Amino acid sequence: MVVDAEPRMLKHQVVRKNLDSLLEGMSPGDPFPSERDLADAHDVSRETLRQAIRELLVAGRIERRGRTTVVAAPKVVLPLAIGSYTEAARKKGMSATRILVGWSTYGADDALAELLHIDTDAPVVQLERVFTTDGTRVGLETTRIPAHRIPGLIETFDHRTSLYAELHTRGITFGPVVDTIETVLPDAREAALLTVDTRTPMFLLNRTSYDNDGVPIEQRRSLYRGDRMTFTAVMGA
Amino acid sequence: MVVDAEPRMLKHQVVRKNLDSLLEGMSPGDPFPSERDLADAHDVSRETLRQAIRELLVAGRIERRGRTTVVAAPKVVLPLAIGSYTEAARKKGMSATRILVGWSTYGADDALAELLHIDTDAPVVQLERVFTTDGTRVGLETTRIPAHRIPGLIETFDHRTSLYAELHTRGITFGPVVDTIETVLPDAREAALLTVDTRTPMFLLNRTSYDNDGVPIEQRRSLYRGDRMTFTAVMGA
Repeated sequence: MVVDAEPRMLKHQVVRKNLDSLLEGMSPGDPFPSERDLADAHDVSRETLRQAIRELLVAGRIERRGRTTVVAAPKVVLPLAIGSYTEAARKKGMSATRILVGWSTYGADDALAELLHIDTDAPVVQLERVFTTDGTRVGLETTRIPAHRIPGLIETFDHRTSLYAELHTRGITFGPVVDTIETVLPDAREAALLTVDTRTPMFLLNRTSYDNDGVPIEQRRSLYRGDRMTFTAVMGA
Repeated sequence: MVVDAEPRMLKHQVVRKNLDSLLEGMSPGDPFPSERDLADAHDVSRETLRQAIRELLVAGRIERRGRTTVVAAPKVVLPLAIGSYTEAARKKGMSATRILVGWSTYGADDALAELLHIDTDAPVVQLERVFTTDGTRVGLETTRIPAHRIPGLIETFDHRTSLYAELHTRGITFGPVVDTIETVLPDAREAALLTVDTRTPMFLLNRTSYDNDGVPIEQRRSLYRGDRMTFTAVMGA
């Protein structure tokens, strides 16, 4: 069956191609032309241009800095992995750190109790941290662990370090895990913590980790900025 | 270090929690209450409610059908894998098919030539297909293969079948691949092909496949609806 459908170039696609070429000649931090100037230069409607710019923002090619728009640094590319993304970023030569949002202790609701194989209302410890790479807030991680597995953790754990390394020191080893990966919009609080607006698509990774005896250790919810992160996945043949 | 930051419930989060509870008691296809009714019932601004509804749309909990909003079917959950997502969906008992958008043949530009280890302007064959599961358009795949690797493919290939299976029949076997995974917004043409609006976040998977001799076979760009798809990834310890 032969169908010869030469891909049609929509006006919008022409604009995108031109903006992509323009960006190739620019460096991170360079000011990006205003919407008005671009609309005039390309003889297209503001609406067409706005969509192209929205795509570039979401794709992490440009970013807002207050009222100006500048060329963004390349996205952070990290492999999907069981380990710490902060450590992975450091291995790639980026500066990376963790900022404490907060610790809390509360009773598990039905859904969390089921995931962690504990009784409803059994105490869980929650740790919430923001991850940065090269000074940019890229991720927000919320991890919940049954309190009885980690006595004294809140008092002694240095939140700037790897939680996995700490658990390992405590003799807890992990079996294989399955992450689910979705795209979501951040709520207002999450957007504020990650310095984005609520229209910026995020990666949402959810994971329940088990120790080598098959007992759940933690439920982890990681939100990563879609405009700043690219994940890679190696797949066998 | 002890910081007791009991997570604050923003008004918006209260609304989301209430809407989540509401959805739990409903079935796919049920009409979802109007924005106005919900704003009245929750005593919040239309703006607060609009953001919560936008999140539910992006999360694939509800969907627009013309002017009404209904409860959506659960997302399709598929493992990140080298093989065909259509075949994977069928194995999970879903009906799944491929719709031909078009074939085209053109000379490779510099970037594509570099990826495929061919000369600039060397002919490549491009196949573009929409994937559906259970009648819903979920993905748009564009694959580009050096023409000399697949003589006669356009004339003989049944586009409803697996391209990987066809290549395998031709004696081409794949080595391991690395996919990059990003979130992007669709352009107008892509949005129309996938029956979404241009504000719906998508997964963008890019892959260059190599044969067992390390020669590139195809460059593949797969766009999957973020509101309809969840990927899973198994990670070893």
